[in-house]
Amino acid sequence: MARVVIVGGGFGGLAAARALKYAKVDLTLVDRANYHLFQPLLYQVATSGLSTTEVATPIRGILGKQTNATVLLDEVWDFDLDNHRVILRDERPLEYDYLVVAAGARTNYFGHLEWSRFAHGLKDLDDAIEIRRRVLLAYEAAERESDPEVRRKFLSFVVIGGGPTGVEMAGALAELSRFSLSRDFRNAKLEEASVTLVEAQARILSAFDEKLSAVARKHLEDLGVRVMTGEMVRSIDEAGVHLDGHMIQAGAVVWAAGVEPRPLTSQLGAELDRAKRVIVEKDCSVPGHPEVFVIGDMACFHGQDGKPLPGLAPVAMQQGRSVARNIRRSLAGLPRRPFEYADKGILATIGRSRAVAERGKVKLDGRAAWLLWVFVHIYYLIGFRNRVAVLTDWAIAYVTYQRGARLITGRRLQPGAPDRGRVVEPSEIEIAAGGQGGYPEEGHPPTHH
Amino acid sequence: MARVVIVGGGFGGLAAARALKYAKVDLTLVDRANYHLFQPLLYQVATSGLSTTEVATPIRGILGKQTNATVLLDEVWDFDLDNHRVILRDERPLEYDYLVVAAGARTNYFGHLEWSRFAHGLKDLDDAIEIRRRVLLAYEAAERESDPEVRRKFLSFVVIGGGPTGVEMAGALAELSRFSLSRDFRNAKLEEASVTLVEAQARILSAFDEKLSAVARKHLEDLGVRVMTGEMVRSIDEAGVHLDGHMIQAGAVVWAAGVEPRPLTSQLGAELDRAKRVIVEKDCSVPGHPEVFVIGDMACFHGQDGKPLPGLAPVAMQQGRSVARNIRRSLAGLPRRPFEYADKGILATIGRSRAVAERGKVKLDGRAAWLLWVFVHIYYLIGFRNRVAVLTDWAIAYVTYQRGARLITGRRLQPGAPDRGRVVEPSEIEIAAGGQGGYPEEGHPPTHH
Repeated sequence: MARVVIVGGGFGGLAAARALKYAKVDLTLVDRANYHLFQPLLYQVATSGLSTTEVATPIRGILGKQTNATVLLDEVWDFDLDNHRVILRDERPLEYDYLVVAAGARTNYFGHLEWSRFAHGLKDLDDAIEIRRRVLLAYEAAERESDPEVRRKFLSFVVIGGGPTGVEMAGALAELSRFSLSRDFRNAKLEEASVTLVEAQARILSAFDEKLSAVARKHLEDLGVRVMTGEMVRSIDEAGVHLDGHMIQAGAVVWAAGVEPRPLTSQLGAELDRAKRVIVEKDCSVPGHPEVFVIGDMACFHGQDGKPLPGLAPVAMQQGRSVARNIRRSLAGLPRRPFEYADKGILATIGRSRAVAERGKVKLDGRAAWLLWVFVHIYYLIGFRNRVAVLTDWAIAYVTYQRGARLITGRRLQPGAPDRGRVVEPSEIEIAAGGQGGYPEEGHPPTHH
Repeated sequence: MARVVIVGGGFGGLAAARALKYAKVDLTLVDRANYHLFQPLLYQVATSGLSTTEVATPIRGILGKQTNATVLLDEVWDFDLDNHRVILRDERPLEYDYLVVAAGARTNYFGHLEWSRFAHGLKDLDDAIEIRRRVLLAYEAAERESDPEVRRKFLSFVVIGGGPTGVEMAGALAELSRFSLSRDFRNAKLEEASVTLVEAQARILSAFDEKLSAVARKHLEDLGVRVMTGEMVRSIDEAGVHLDGHMIQAGAVVWAAGVEPRPLTSQLGAELDRAKRVIVEKDCSVPGHPEVFVIGDMACFHGQDGKPLPGLAPVAMQQGRSVARNIRRSLAGLPRRPFEYADKGILATIGRSRAVAERGKVKLDGRAAWLLWVFVHIYYLIGFRNRVAVLTDWAIAYVTYQRGARLITGRRLQPGAPDRGRVVEPSEIEIAAGGQGGYPEEGHPPTHH
């Protein structure tokens, strides 16, 4: 039986695995995480709108009934294409007849990894929990602070990057401030809070039509977000974000300015584009290696218009299915078919009732786009359970403005003193995230029943 | 206006705060966590049955609309009873006219803190997430392992302590193994998995009637749990749990053998009982300090039968309400009323359809007790949102045997190499929990939308 190895359980890898359900193959999916993440909603975890289990599903749960599939929680270190082997981190080899590489992207700090201490990226569950912790701790610090100027600093949130993730984060942070500060806090005041969105280009949502981009900016400003375009970030430190000639104080900074493919792309011996993606053939295979495919954020695939396809979930999913179909065709001795992207359009939401959407010449904004956004996201959420839970959460959140996921967790055990942590001030949070600090979670009277 | 300070946002502290809703007081509730924890269901988070947000509610959300209440995320270091002040960790004082101390209990290793590296306790959300991570990683390690003897070690789970928490953990672990291993794993097999419950006393659930205790043991054994009573733990290390004369190999160990009050009790200058609880007056006040109350797990209150009340949620809640009533009475110049405990009985569940319940002479077991257990727990879950979500989750879990919360999270950022963590083997997990290791969560193809 042909052995298929898929690296990565995101949209691309999972789509490929599921499309091979009835194929006579021996399939192994390797991922470093045990869950598939619905990344488009990750910003909702970071802003206390959704719980982690609502945007993440165990990969084993998704593929549990697919009898030809094995899931491996492991990490790929290298490829040995000549011998058709994937090398796992403990140097164990994994042999394949067909290989699908779909390990996705990571946060790109453009050479300034030192900024990651102060400006957290948003690529996985732990990122989202960390951002949630920083934002909620900033509120708490402001609540304890008597000096209004210091409160303003704590309550100043800066989002860097005006793409869909940045826009959605900024909108959700503005709404979280409005909800929390007007109801749950006594000392920290809404008028002391601010959300700033910084974009280097001339406009936000540059992938969208100019008019929609302007509408999105208007929507954000209506929510109280300060939108700064054409501003380059020069540095980020504990004080805040330094732009050309001025500085924005910040209680918490979110980095949504860019992603890059995981470094595995450079281990395939293939030509990379400027964004370090593997330039693939028309069937998504690696040149010279028809048995190796690269899809999703790791691949540079030139679309019908000659431009590389963007890093979108639908691209990765369609490529995953195309690759699966071509593996089946190769096994059946049939010629392969080139991948063709069916453009699903692009969407971004701003807060709880507005969005912008674009598909070809159709452009939508406001509530109609938002309803489309809700429909599309629920539809694509994998797993019935999550669909119900997210709908319930959203319906309740919409009616009550509640944010049930506002939990600050993430204490580290301190050997010898498991009971004496310290409360981390926002200025120290970055250090804690770097692995040194600790945050106590205890102090509530427990019960046995 | 009289200032009331409540230390702890658990069952006792929160009940006191809510019972003061219409009192003319200036109320401050201090807690080290920003959430109230529904501790009786915490074992469900540890065994992937429920999500963190379903058992925890932000304290600010609960008291947000109570205009006389302020919530402070902070830690109490000391008391200055003579000057009516609580000392916070940064030495800031907090003045009070009435003080309610309700900071609860923590895991008690009976002088063997070194065991905490290998046998994790279950008192807060981070504990539950850590146990969940250890158990799920043990499955993953078994799935990668070719030697069946090593797999048996990884899949051997030991719960120490046969009280309600231990019994519930053991039952839920046995069900999790049955569900996961029979469906989601290919290499790790159900017959290689084991759950052992170790109890030092002659029987489990010693607070219950002997007959119910025997029924519970039978229920557990039906689920495949090995119940060992009269066995003292001599030591715990990476190999497993050492008893007198023999050793149980373990892939993960849960410590549910005991709790002790938080050390704050010793800073009140009052007499403590053998369990280090403050011996309180008939109105739950500290002898010599009628303005200071101690309630819940921190208090030793002698009941109508002369025995100290047990550490149960209903005791803490009733004491909280009693103390609030007496504060209102004192403010109105009325004499106080002694606290009287209305016994609600005791309950423990074993797996997904069995439980034992006892109230006075009424004893229930099997499905009737389980239905009672479900009803009581849903009823007491604070917050409408959680009630709906938990019910939904349970209903779906009951029908489908799904466990949606099976997420392994908790990577630490490693400065300079944020992208290269390592997979932690079960033998290393304890070290990771001690603050040194790291666990990568990434590797799924992300998307921008």
